[in-house]
Amino acid sequence: MAAVNKTAHSFDKARLEALLSRRFFYAPAFEIYGGVAGLYDYGPSGSSLQANIINEWRKHFIIEEAMLELDTTIMTPAPVFETSGHVARFADWMVKDTKTGDMLRADHLVKTVLGQRLADDEELRSGTAQPVDAKKKKKDKTPPKVKLEAAVAKEYETILAQLDNYDGPQLGELCRTHKIHNPDTDNEVGEPSQFNLMFTSSIGPTGRFPGYLRPETAQGHFLNFSRLLDFNNGKVPFASAQIGRSFRNEISPRAGLLRVREFTMAEIEHFVDPDDKKHPKFASVADVELTLLDRHVQEAGSTEVKRLRVGDAVANGVIANETLAYFMVRISQFLLKIGIDPKRMRFRQHMGNEMAHYATDCWDAELQNSYGWTECVGCADRAAYDLTVHSKKTGQQLVVRESLREPIVREAEVAELNKKIVGKSFKGDAAIFTKHIEGLDEAALVELKSALLNGKTTVTTAEGKSFEITPEFLTIERKTLKQSIREYTPNVIEPSFGLGRILYVLLEHNYWSREQDVDRGVLSLPPLVAPTKVLICPLSSNKEFEPIVADISAKLRRSGIFSKVDDSSQTIGKRYSRNDELGTPYGLTVDFASVQKGTLTLRERDTMDQRIGSIDEVVSIVADLCEGKIDWPQACERLPAYDGKQAVD
Amino acid sequence: MAAVNKTAHSFDKARLEALLSRRFFYAPAFEIYGGVAGLYDYGPSGSSLQANIINEWRKHFIIEEAMLELDTTIMTPAPVFETSGHVARFADWMVKDTKTGDMLRADHLVKTVLGQRLADDEELRSGTAQPVDAKKKKKDKTPPKVKLEAAVAKEYETILAQLDNYDGPQLGELCRTHKIHNPDTDNEVGEPSQFNLMFTSSIGPTGRFPGYLRPETAQGHFLNFSRLLDFNNGKVPFASAQIGRSFRNEISPRAGLLRVREFTMAEIEHFVDPDDKKHPKFASVADVELTLLDRHVQEAGSTEVKRLRVGDAVANGVIANETLAYFMVRISQFLLKIGIDPKRMRFRQHMGNEMAHYATDCWDAELQNSYGWTECVGCADRAAYDLTVHSKKTGQQLVVRESLREPIVREAEVAELNKKIVGKSFKGDAAIFTKHIEGLDEAALVELKSALLNGKTTVTTAEGKSFEITPEFLTIERKTLKQSIREYTPNVIEPSFGLGRILYVLLEHNYWSREQDVDRGVLSLPPLVAPTKVLICPLSSNKEFEPIVADISAKLRRSGIFSKVDDSSQTIGKRYSRNDELGTPYGLTVDFASVQKGTLTLRERDTMDQRIGSIDEVVSIVADLCEGKIDWPQACERLPAYDGKQAVD
Repeated sequence: MAAVNKTAHSFDKARLEALLSRRFFYAPAFEIYGGVAGLYDYGPSGSSLQANIINEWRKHFIIEEAMLELDTTIMTPAPVFETSGHVARFADWMVKDTKTGDMLRADHLVKTVLGQRLADDEELRSGTAQPVDAKKKKKDKTPPKVKLEAAVAKEYETILAQLDNYDGPQLGELCRTHKIHNPDTDNEVGEPSQFNLMFTSSIGPTGRFPGYLRPETAQGHFLNFSRLLDFNNGKVPFASAQIGRSFRNEISPRAGLLRVREFTMAEIEHFVDPDDKKHPKFASVADVELTLLDRHVQEAGSTEVKRLRVGDAVANGVIANETLAYFMVRISQFLLKIGIDPKRMRFRQHMGNEMAHYATDCWDAELQNSYGWTECVGCADRAAYDLTVHSKKTGQQLVVRESLREPIVREAEVAELNKKIVGKSFKGDAAIFTKHIEGLDEAALVELKSALLNGKTTVTTAEGKSFEITPEFLTIERKTLKQSIREYTPNVIEPSFGLGRILYVLLEHNYWSREQDVDRGVLSLPPLVAPTKVLICPLSSNKEFEPIVADISAKLRRSGIFSKVDDSSQTIGKRYSRNDELGTPYGLTVDFASVQKGTLTLRERDTMDQRIGSIDEVVSIVADLCEGKIDWPQACERLPAYDGKQAVD
Repeated sequence: MAAVNKTAHSFDKARLEALLSRRFFYAPAFEIYGGVAGLYDYGPSGSSLQANIINEWRKHFIIEEAMLELDTTIMTPAPVFETSGHVARFADWMVKDTKTGDMLRADHLVKTVLGQRLADDEELRSGTAQPVDAKKKKKDKTPPKVKLEAAVAKEYETILAQLDNYDGPQLGELCRTHKIHNPDTDNEVGEPSQFNLMFTSSIGPTGRFPGYLRPETAQGHFLNFSRLLDFNNGKVPFASAQIGRSFRNEISPRAGLLRVREFTMAEIEHFVDPDDKKHPKFASVADVELTLLDRHVQEAGSTEVKRLRVGDAVANGVIANETLAYFMVRISQFLLKIGIDPKRMRFRQHMGNEMAHYATDCWDAELQNSYGWTECVGCADRAAYDLTVHSKKTGQQLVVRESLREPIVREAEVAELNKKIVGKSFKGDAAIFTKHIEGLDEAALVELKSALLNGKTTVTTAEGKSFEITPEFLTIERKTLKQSIREYTPNVIEPSFGLGRILYVLLEHNYWSREQDVDRGVLSLPPLVAPTKVLICPLSSNKEFEPIVADISAKLRRSGIFSKVDDSSQTIGKRYSRNDELGTPYGLTVDFASVQKGTLTLRERDTMDQRIGSIDEVVSIVADLCEGKIDWPQACERLPAYDGKQAVD
């Protein structure tokens, strides 16, 4: 078995991007119309990769955890997002270039400019750059590189560590204090203003019903809560799950698939008893270690991570509850399974000001890539926020009603009205009086009871209406009450996946170049998600190969493995190179020995090792490899190496 | 094996709708906010059914035919739909209620009102209704039922057969002539006006970039044509395929899932040589018979269908070409496979005025249901329309360049200019003169050649500019030209599936009630698409059943079959009834005999037959049933009937 050196060449983003474009993983949408920032189309390779990721997600979460799948509407009437708080608060701060009028996202501007200054400083100190560029072009608006005072550099680092914690006025203050200009023009920027990120539209022909494109799928789960609960026979906890498109009208998206205006999400809303956030399967994950960056570390201006056993993290209160921790582990397991590099994954806790308006705690699974650390999965505790606001707005009860095993028995003061006397005495005001009495709490009832002992008293409502009453009007007695139903609004733990971000980082984590030739890129995608698992290459267009190719295809398909045939006229070598770029893990070559001796050669993508065996044997080994039943070294034990020569007539 | 009578009770839409709501197949979106017409959410049953239909679609089309999958953007900048013709022409005619201002779709109004009059007439003639309802309520705006003259009834029928062929002014004329009012208010309606069905929005924070939500996925395929062609190694024919959400801002949607504002489509764009629309696999489908309703029959005011062998339909010119016919067969096979009733499927050809602006021929797969015959799949020949308009607008070549096996050799007149003399003589006008000469066709060159034989002549451009020339300025000679590349814009055959419509009709076609109890509804969905294939029911919550249930689950999963466990406290009978409504084909009951003797009972949904065998035997038979390897009678041969009694300790 050949040894493989995947790190011979350092990561080169431009090469990867060229590969992704050439092999049509994705491309700017509306490219022939000049494109639109933040909108991308997935080609055959990207679509297939995405479909495989979604398929695994569905198995790992929906099927494994028996979640209830949903497919809800994107176009949403305005009142829903008014209630959810998105109309008022789902916004980013933007600043205007004072001369060109271009809009920039304020926090990204600060990050870019201060980050650049720190990088320049680093370069100058290490001697890899010149302090003043004498030949600087007039048109180049890039400010000259300068060395920073130690204190200034330290201040910048602290700002960047806390960046997500600043509000608009604070970002404006930072721009002024640190003379942060638009880097494209070197113009000053104005005061930050808020821009709502939801796309707006109008439903129906009248223009009277404004709508928004959903920025998350979550509201679709909450609005259907009662139906879901009923489907689950009234029992909690349960989770709903949805995979679908969402939209955010980003201010000036510039980071490829990492910041887009339209994207596919996979969201889980796990509804749980607020008094019991334990998870029945927690014991099975308690020993897993995660890399954590908690809020206290960040608020102290640091980004140093800790490796913690999840069981300890919950016990120490670093992670708030078992359910949140259980999902963090499951998220981590999913990401590793599809091929994310474990060394470039961490969970970062949100800081106070950074949290979305609906969340009480949130941990992001962040993946490191050439743009930095990027949030790819959020895992938030939304508490009872959403169900509460929708229930209040619509008057619909969004609650769980649970029969108590043992009824709660308690004593309390209970008022009983004599309706006849009340009606006769207060006539039209009887209802006001009745409502007032029914609204009295324990303490008020005790007080009224003692006042009535005097034979007569006056009751005054909040609106200032007075009623004179005697003990004839009502009796107040201490009674034993039995409560057999508990009613509560469940809390929600929400793991929310940005599939496009995960897909992009996955490509970065699996891209490398052959040691002997930097131009020969390889995507080492695991068979589980690779767009094509097996490539079948007939040596030439000779008709004799056709039935063998068809037979291999059919056999693989019966094992549930979908292969592709490449019968193009290119050399086998070129076809293999193309498939290394497409991430195809295995290649089968049909040649004259296949016709005469029934043999087949098998090529492994990463090692470029070739093995030989009978057609049936090789097909069965490929099936085992694709299903993860064996790995390549095990396959090599079963198949002899192919030396590239075979005696054929 | 029990006999099943599925037609004991006539179809009852209200019962079906109650079932679909109760079992959360789908529900009005934003229901707790009062709902929005034409927007629906799919619950767990509907999502799973939809996912299974999509899965089968992907296998049947994308994998089986090696199509290139795409996933493109919904939010589309305005220029794309300006070019494609949708901004100008993707509209419906609507009329306004003259008093309430409500908007109604004009063709639907005509259909509803004339259809009702015909139905009333029918009722009166058959004696099932009274001509004048003496107790008619004042508020009821329904016009009284009247008998129609035979000629009037005939006229209505003719109008309805041609309804899709009328334009706006004609629909307005129909409303006036036949006194067609808004049936909800009995108010007159105004003149029809056009309403564009695309939802509008705005991209980015400036408000300067209008966008539309795509009303079809097709443009995403066309805009990526060059990349797709390149991915396919420059070869045609090939097909791209996409499953995704589209949006149409319907005027007043009222037909449940059949007319919605947001829907999931599955679209194929098959790119083909315009001079060769043969299909390589046509022979394999030529003997299939389809039910056809061609345009000539409809234009003669009839809706009588013909059963035709596809081979004959192409030979006789009823279906325009092999590729169109091939896809019609594949569409039909797909619909039958997922459970559509073959007797309620037909292909209807579009009439001239009815065709979308981009189509040259179109056949709809229509499925009959309680709303009538509904288009569920369109199969259109879009010719070169889209690629041509986008290419013209953007200046990007969207063509196939094909090396000719044998170069085309032909003789032609060729003009060769003496650039020096032309430049010197005509100076600034030289370019105009050159362009004019280069644009001359064969005949004009022959004429000019003979004129030059006189030594001098005058050339006049289309703009009226004259040039006096002599043979020194140019020579015109007959030359042999060799063309080795053929360049052409491919044509497109487009099968386009409305998945929500198919899903709804599938539910109607598979719904029935038990003969002995009309309230016991059953959905006889084929295992291929049923939301859950196998239900595992432990008799009670006894702990002894748990390992057996887990074992059966795991065994089924290894066969790729996902089961559900129903361990709720309801009786087995109630759990079975619930699963009949959910369309679950098989039930496995774990009882004390399972614990003591290792047996398992298997229940079939439609017959309610119960069979018994060892756990392994039953699990293996269920797997075969779900994969369609055996049918129920075959399973019955392998398993004895269960009489409901077993000796256990």
